[in-house]
Amino acid sequence: MAICQMEVAKSKDKNLLKAEKMIIEAALKGAEIIVLPEMFNCPYQNDFFIKFAETYPGKSTALISRLAKKFSVYIIGGSIPEKDGTKIYNTSYSFDKKGNLAAKHRKVHLFDINVENGISFKESDTLSPGNKITVFDTEYCKFGVAICYDMRFPELIRKMTLCEARIIIIPAAFNMTTGPAHWHVTARARALDNQVYFICASPASDTKASYVAYGHSLAADPWGKIIAEAGEKEEILCFEIDLDYLEKVRRELPLLKHRREAIYF
Amino acid sequence: MAICQMEVAKSKDKNLLKAEKMIIEAALKGAEIIVLPEMFNCPYQNDFFIKFAETYPGKSTALISRLAKKFSVYIIGGSIPEKDGTKIYNTSYSFDKKGNLAAKHRKVHLFDINVENGISFKESDTLSPGNKITVFDTEYCKFGVAICYDMRFPELIRKMTLCEARIIIIPAAFNMTTGPAHWHVTARARALDNQVYFICASPASDTKASYVAYGHSLAADPWGKIIAEAGEKEEILCFEIDLDYLEKVRRELPLLKHRREAIYF
Repeated sequence: MAICQMEVAKSKDKNLLKAEKMIIEAALKGAEIIVLPEMFNCPYQNDFFIKFAETYPGKSTALISRLAKKFSVYIIGGSIPEKDGTKIYNTSYSFDKKGNLAAKHRKVHLFDINVENGISFKESDTLSPGNKITVFDTEYCKFGVAICYDMRFPELIRKMTLCEARIIIIPAAFNMTTGPAHWHVTARARALDNQVYFICASPASDTKASYVAYGHSLAADPWGKIIAEAGEKEEILCFEIDLDYLEKVRRELPLLKHRREAIYF
Repeated sequence: MAICQMEVAKSKDKNLLKAEKMIIEAALKGAEIIVLPEMFNCPYQNDFFIKFAETYPGKSTALISRLAKKFSVYIIGGSIPEKDGTKIYNTSYSFDKKGNLAAKHRKVHLFDINVENGISFKESDTLSPGNKITVFDTEYCKFGVAICYDMRFPELIRKMTLCEARIIIIPAAFNMTTGPAHWHVTARARALDNQVYFICASPASDTKASYVAYGHSLAADPWGKIIAEAGEKEEILCFEIDLDYLEKVRRELPLLKHRREAIYF
């Protein structure tokens, strides 16, 4: 599996070229599942969401589909601003090895926060929320996809787990306030609580951007251990998934069996 | 607030004396809320659970009640093996400043795990599970209490939060396998996801015991930061709770408001 931690520029064409180059490199390194970050084709800014929004199928999704087929890989295509009628969504498209659309996730939880002396952002100024969880079959196991702020909500990730997702993939773009404070702990806890592989793909950190992403793309295993982590700069992060290990953890520490639903709800 | 990270011996009387001594010391240091660890009066072993089990009211709870009243403090009395008819429970009794019983929590999730080259334990060999969550009013805010393995279940802690617990207190005894791997990450994530103070009280680590507790009692704040942490040895850990800060975090990063229940359940 590989995460393309790419730097996102202000030109959509440049971003698509960069994504193509990194996907090719990841495929040549042997990755069978390749992940792009949130808003890989667009600066993380409300005005750019409007300007770069695409209907489906469009230029960005066509590229991902073509590359998935050409290299016979799964691509979890980060996310892009999706135009649908008068609305714009933060949407992740995943393609299978034949280049067919495997799943589409619209970010369910919009990122509206305002931290004193820290980050402020209001996605709901331009974006509309999705209304469903995203889990789909692959030849390996079921995958789940959610986007960035979605990972803050343990119920969503639990629901994906109960729908049998064993690899949960999060195109994301935490920032320099919430990244250092919350990125690792949230990813590790979701992996551990749900006994899944939890994969978070960030853009590279660009200190000249209006929204500075944290970087540090990572993979956490079902024991809650970080098995791969990028730095802040552009990088292809490769790692192995071991589904036998996942089952071993679930046998030895049977958290999912020990749940007592009648008491929670 | 103070956690008494006490070493637990094989004599119940010794344990009660030790608890008394540490509670007095914590009260004299100015703590208004004092927490004991899981099974503070009893070695963490199935045979001792049977031998040391008490009905309520009993010797151990009478002591805690008396000290709570004498020093006008809340005491979250860790847990003890509770005998009720033919059953034994892992039960936490909390007393208010007048020495009245404020709440009783019976561990809901029994600790039955078997990790290769690590820890094995089966509480269900001797214990029965409780069947309800525990949240109660105090003059400060609502407190929640759960015990050790209970904290592994995000649904339980979320439910306590939705019942308006703002300080969640976990008498616990993680071990030398799960402690280093999971103690901090789980405590921090529960605090952060639920935007509560999350307080975990462990016995001191006694390497001669059959079950070696991890120690490292800690307090995590609503931003997911560890604001106080003990070492492995006996220690009284004191720290401040700031409920204004809790409300500030909830305003700035409105996770609880952003939940979308219709999608999860």
